[in-house]
Amino acid sequence: MKELSIQKVSADNWRSLADLTVAADQKPYIEPNEISMLESFYDTKHNWVCFGLFKQDQPVGFMMIGAEDKEEQYIWLDRFMIDQRFQGSGLGRSFIQLAIEYIFTHYAANEIVLSIKPENGGAKRFYMQAGFEDSGLIDPEFDEDIFMYEKN
Amino acid sequence: MKELSIQKVSADNWRSLADLTVAADQKPYIEPNEISMLESFYDTKHNWVCFGLFKQDQPVGFMMIGAEDKEEQYIWLDRFMIDQRFQGSGLGRSFIQLAIEYIFTHYAANEIVLSIKPENGGAKRFYMQAGFEDSGLIDPEFDEDIFMYEKN
Repeated sequence: MKELSIQKVSADNWRSLADLTVAADQKPYIEPNEISMLESFYDTKHNWVCFGLFKQDQPVGFMMIGAEDKEEQYIWLDRFMIDQRFQGSGLGRSFIQLAIEYIFTHYAANEIVLSIKPENGGAKRFYMQAGFEDSGLIDPEFDEDIFMYEKN
Repeated sequence: MKELSIQKVSADNWRSLADLTVAADQKPYIEPNEISMLESFYDTKHNWVCFGLFKQDQPVGFMMIGAEDKEEQYIWLDRFMIDQRFQGSGLGRSFIQLAIEYIFTHYAANEIVLSIKPENGGAKRFYMQAGFEDSGLIDPEFDEDIFMYEKN
């Protein structure tokens, strides 16, 4: 088994992934994983797919990919999180690189897009270190800053 | 619009139904509604269907119906709950009667089955007042007492 892996949420792992949580000060910035999973079932127009992030067979994080714009060739990365018990160990940095790789391998997108609440400086620094850039655009639905990662 | 109604969980109502909660002392006895909804998607072998309970257009409760045994003609009623803000007003009694009616109208079952944790005396009294009887059987998976309602 690979040390770190990305696996689709399934009947076998959804409960353990729903149990993952962020620290209290991060809760305003991200929906609980179970709500993201429900969005993938009920808000069907965006074709959200949910993934678990695993360290060997231990679930340590979660993310959601979808809302692909096939014409403009970009796709959204959303709800990327590392459980609070596993934060601060560099797992986030490793998994965001794996996520970028995963997206460009599995989708025809040339750009990865995500949005960050203006006041969430920690997330902005995290994504900029991972190679994302502030697009200067605002997501009008949530008044969030849009960051982009361009395929090399 | 009917005063009280039972409606399938849908893209339009799932968020408001996921927000419904029971009081702290009832939490050990029932899964959160969002977990029940996820079971309906991931644990597919039981064909769980989730429903919202509405007072006019206000979501006030939740339930899940499934695990039908077509041969023995019984079906499970599970996760029946009234939000804590609306408890104590008789809504539970009205909705359990509506639920019984709904099940016998929409399914070929002759019996409704549910299980109750042995120590949950409140639920036992509630379901007995509604016409359920203690079957004397134990659900071996969860060590819960099985109650049954027989069609008249």
